[in-house]
Amino acid sequence: MNYMSILEKLQKIRPEKIKKLNESQLKRLASDIREFLINSLSETGGHLGSNLGVVELSIALHYCYNSPVDKFLWDVGHQTYVHKILTGRARNFKTLRTLDGLSGFTNPKESEHDHFATGHASTALSSAMGLAIARDFKGENNSVVAIFGDGSLTGGLCYEALNNIGASGTNLLAILNDNQMSIAENVGAIHKNLNSLRVSNGYINTKMNIKKSLEFLPFGKKIARVTKKTKDNLRSFLLPGSFFEELGFTYIGPIDGHDIETLITVLNKIKKIKGPVLLHLKTQKGKGYELAENAPDNYHGVSSFSINFPIEGSKKETYSEILGKELINIAGRNEKVLAITAAMPDGTGLYRFKEAFPERFFDVGIAEQHAVLFSAGLAKEGFIPVVAIYSTFLQRAYDQLIHDVCLGNFHVVFSIDRAGITGEDGETHQGIFDISYLTHIPNLCVMAPKDKAEYIAMLNFAVNEMSTPVAIRYPKGTPNYFENETKIKYGKSETLIKGEKIAIVSFGHITKTAAEVSERLKQDGFKPTLINARFASPLDLEMLENLKNYEYVFTIEENVKEGGFGSLVSLKIKHSYIFALEKKYIKAGSRDELLKLSGLDTETIYNKIKEKIAFSPSLASLPKENKSSNIGIIKNKNDD
Amino acid sequence: MNYMSILEKLQKIRPEKIKKLNESQLKRLASDIREFLINSLSETGGHLGSNLGVVELSIALHYCYNSPVDKFLWDVGHQTYVHKILTGRARNFKTLRTLDGLSGFTNPKESEHDHFATGHASTALSSAMGLAIARDFKGENNSVVAIFGDGSLTGGLCYEALNNIGASGTNLLAILNDNQMSIAENVGAIHKNLNSLRVSNGYINTKMNIKKSLEFLPFGKKIARVTKKTKDNLRSFLLPGSFFEELGFTYIGPIDGHDIETLITVLNKIKKIKGPVLLHLKTQKGKGYELAENAPDNYHGVSSFSINFPIEGSKKETYSEILGKELINIAGRNEKVLAITAAMPDGTGLYRFKEAFPERFFDVGIAEQHAVLFSAGLAKEGFIPVVAIYSTFLQRAYDQLIHDVCLGNFHVVFSIDRAGITGEDGETHQGIFDISYLTHIPNLCVMAPKDKAEYIAMLNFAVNEMSTPVAIRYPKGTPNYFENETKIKYGKSETLIKGEKIAIVSFGHITKTAAEVSERLKQDGFKPTLINARFASPLDLEMLENLKNYEYVFTIEENVKEGGFGSLVSLKIKHSYIFALEKKYIKAGSRDELLKLSGLDTETIYNKIKEKIAFSPSLASLPKENKSSNIGIIKNKNDD
Repeated sequence: MNYMSILEKLQKIRPEKIKKLNESQLKRLASDIREFLINSLSETGGHLGSNLGVVELSIALHYCYNSPVDKFLWDVGHQTYVHKILTGRARNFKTLRTLDGLSGFTNPKESEHDHFATGHASTALSSAMGLAIARDFKGENNSVVAIFGDGSLTGGLCYEALNNIGASGTNLLAILNDNQMSIAENVGAIHKNLNSLRVSNGYINTKMNIKKSLEFLPFGKKIARVTKKTKDNLRSFLLPGSFFEELGFTYIGPIDGHDIETLITVLNKIKKIKGPVLLHLKTQKGKGYELAENAPDNYHGVSSFSINFPIEGSKKETYSEILGKELINIAGRNEKVLAITAAMPDGTGLYRFKEAFPERFFDVGIAEQHAVLFSAGLAKEGFIPVVAIYSTFLQRAYDQLIHDVCLGNFHVVFSIDRAGITGEDGETHQGIFDISYLTHIPNLCVMAPKDKAEYIAMLNFAVNEMSTPVAIRYPKGTPNYFENETKIKYGKSETLIKGEKIAIVSFGHITKTAAEVSERLKQDGFKPTLINARFASPLDLEMLENLKNYEYVFTIEENVKEGGFGSLVSLKIKHSYIFALEKKYIKAGSRDELLKLSGLDTETIYNKIKEKIAFSPSLASLPKENKSSNIGIIKNKNDD
Repeated sequence: MNYMSILEKLQKIRPEKIKKLNESQLKRLASDIREFLINSLSETGGHLGSNLGVVELSIALHYCYNSPVDKFLWDVGHQTYVHKILTGRARNFKTLRTLDGLSGFTNPKESEHDHFATGHASTALSSAMGLAIARDFKGENNSVVAIFGDGSLTGGLCYEALNNIGASGTNLLAILNDNQMSIAENVGAIHKNLNSLRVSNGYINTKMNIKKSLEFLPFGKKIARVTKKTKDNLRSFLLPGSFFEELGFTYIGPIDGHDIETLITVLNKIKKIKGPVLLHLKTQKGKGYELAENAPDNYHGVSSFSINFPIEGSKKETYSEILGKELINIAGRNEKVLAITAAMPDGTGLYRFKEAFPERFFDVGIAEQHAVLFSAGLAKEGFIPVVAIYSTFLQRAYDQLIHDVCLGNFHVVFSIDRAGITGEDGETHQGIFDISYLTHIPNLCVMAPKDKAEYIAMLNFAVNEMSTPVAIRYPKGTPNYFENETKIKYGKSETLIKGEKIAIVSFGHITKTAAEVSERLKQDGFKPTLINARFASPLDLEMLENLKNYEYVFTIEENVKEGGFGSLVSLKIKHSYIFALEKKYIKAGSRDELLKLSGLDTETIYNKIKEKIAFSPSLASLPKENKSSNIGIIKNKNDD
């Protein structure tokens, strides 16, 4: 069947129609959805592997429950493509993760079947508990189902919720979608334990077995009693998950998450169990698409690809790739250097470091709080941990930054990826708050590089010349390449162009935009001073003192205005004008589109500056020089 | 024995001396320490109950291990008074929790036996893992011991660390000090489980029993093998903690934490076990002091007290008490209102609400992330959760504020206690960052009341007139009482005095100081305008627009300058001058002492303003009027 005919078919599917399908029709639906997803994502890119892994689960949920009255909470939300197809959104897949297109995560604005806009891990159980307790207060009896992966289970938030749900005794189904791989290879004791379950005698991997056991058991209300009171073989057969039992859940599983008939049988039985239930499913990322099954890492998040040829890992030059390469060099020269990630070895570029120095590489799971605090302990003993982390995920370790790393003044280096606008992942992934949440923390040095060479220099500076906490922020994608480079000095900016009357001070990667604006102003006959700030904390006070005599000072940054770089500068230079992001959540789109929409593109900034300086008599009388800039930018295409 | 002679004796104690004591001498030491603590804290106040609970444990640790080579990591750190006495700090107890005095928590500046400055819960295991892995890299063989309470075990961070330590297999002893009560009655499934262990047959509560079992077992290296491989009764006898086992620990316990002989025997045996070990102790808060044993809540953190008469719960009027009372009124009128705390029903004042509406009160444990996210779920369904939380602890839910509550724009009310300088708890507890970390978050309304009536009005406004996220911040202690009150309007300030040329804009409780400064300026013949800002987000733009014509605008707040209230105002009023805290950690002391040291007392602010305006010709020529203020402040004593 070709793509258009599948699309036509899937466009008509709705939850109420799914309930009327028989077993072979359900299987056919699953097969159609897989074909559609592979075809559609080969064009648009997106999260492929995880969605292929939950086709049967998503169908079974909509078959057994009545969404949106019954509520599905998908942890993270990147695995909801099938759910989106089943709730009437198939036609929107051609706009997936584009400006004003279909979100790559759940989004209540998109459908009544989505309850929260999400994107960070380990949140589904807590919000599900909120919905379940609210339902109990209202005296209603809808079901609340949280679906979370084995990766999310490494996050402490998940455990806080399991502990509280277990204690509350509320009716809630938690489905552990155990696909043996979260974003990276899974980490930690819990995962080892899940693996051992998988090979235990108790593992039910055939429909035959599960059916037998279900017939044998007095299911329904009685199962709760049985699972809680008997201590015989039956219990050890059905309940290898004493971890969850101790937290107060009735544990069912593990069962095959691709066996749709069994899934439906089990879900219908579970509806009759009182109190919290944990259903442990075993699924396979990339299920049904051999290339993805064989290389799940490469098919987790994909760009457009060719269906019949395997995707290779991306090797294009990004800040992340540079970190991976350069940290190997640094670590080769200094045996104290260690690398830490919270489940993001690929995204942060550390996978290279892992290969080069496996014993000096630590993936702690989706556990940002622990990653930062563990690093404080390592630093206390003289090691130099480099924590590679996304800006939006470091938000989760804000307290550990204040209470542990910076209060102890420990030499931990934070290499903060995806700072600024990240693009297609949308509202939950933009790294637009970090300058604000980092620069008010005592003892923390905050830097941002204008380009590749400067990032490498800063990383070396942070490791070799600092002895206190340092953060370096940089955006997603390919770096800039400037011609000139000067040595990094603590708290010192770099003057790229020495001019007069007008000064532009920019922080980080967006210095390229600042240079372009500066160039255009030069062509207009002005002589702007262009400064690459390098440090947001501490600020270069000497530089700022010199700027006080300028008629106009403009700051440019990729962060919200409140508490941002420009805001810090304005505490020193009262008449400075700030180019920054408005305080609001930023939707999905390409980096270029979103920067333009936010007024942080060259054209908009140039026009606004021209508007500002138009009223200055001293500047209006300047002769047109049309002189070219003395700062060279090697052209590059920004990755988006 | 009198206090001075005990002090004289305890002053001489050192870790190396403890190792030479025999059993009866150790017991005598324990008894002396108890007497000393009860006497000393009856004068100074401090954490009494938790320290009486770890007397034997602290002695046994110093007896068995060689601190500081062997490292003790005390979670939170408020239970380290005995450890401090044993490491030569007995004489400093008269200065406990005072300016430049002995810290109420661990503090590396105080002693080489303290490794981290702490104060927040659930951190010890992560930092201990850092020290342990660093030791492994160095090829050293010192011991690392983390001591944490059953309360800390409700925090997800603790679980992240247990999971990672279990997976790492590093040598580390985690001691669970299970005293059946953290700050409040403990919460959650894990606690229910610990309670059931307590009454199980396997519970070893007499020295006889434990000795017998130790003789019977092939202890030393072999125990690891035994505990991991046998599945017989012995295992179920010694290992009721399968939760910890599943996380990769060798579990020992529970044993009586007040039986010093058994503690020493067990600790010495544990030293020979490879890999992570969890030792589960049962202890009693307030042990050895009957009044404290009977009312552990009242003796957790005490002010000076009479040794022979029971302490009653504090009933003096604080912002916290006002919350407790007013929320009952509000909830009585609106059945949708719920109250949420993260293990702080007493500290936040919610214990009153708990009594009035037990079913609408949720204590989720020391789980701030879950508290905030759970509230998002409740709000999604139309309930109005009021999260009462300390400023410094809300730092842990910063990501949930951004990613969950404010992105969803849910009507959750945050009643933020201990905002600003908190006093005796020192660096880890100051609430000096919240304006900075809250006001850059989209959709979040941030308020602060000048006094009691305004706090009540804001709480009602937040619950009844808002439908999006709101935060109200207020300090520790007794509120102010102003005479005038006006109705709260969204985003609108209150003009307390309408003057000219000089304007003072203050945010929150510190408005009392602003009013005093204003009064003194009036007495000097000036006519300052005095504005109570009420909102930091959104700012009152109309008010700020009017201020542009003022010669001098001064802002006053109790928060760091970077990203704070004054910083936000200065984005609108370029010539404003900011009174705020310097970006640094603030040590312990009374609120009044610390405000003075920070330059935020009336005298300092008045003098600085006088200095600033001295250069203004228009103001210098003003006649002296000595007119009294038209704003009445009812005098009150600030609690510290």
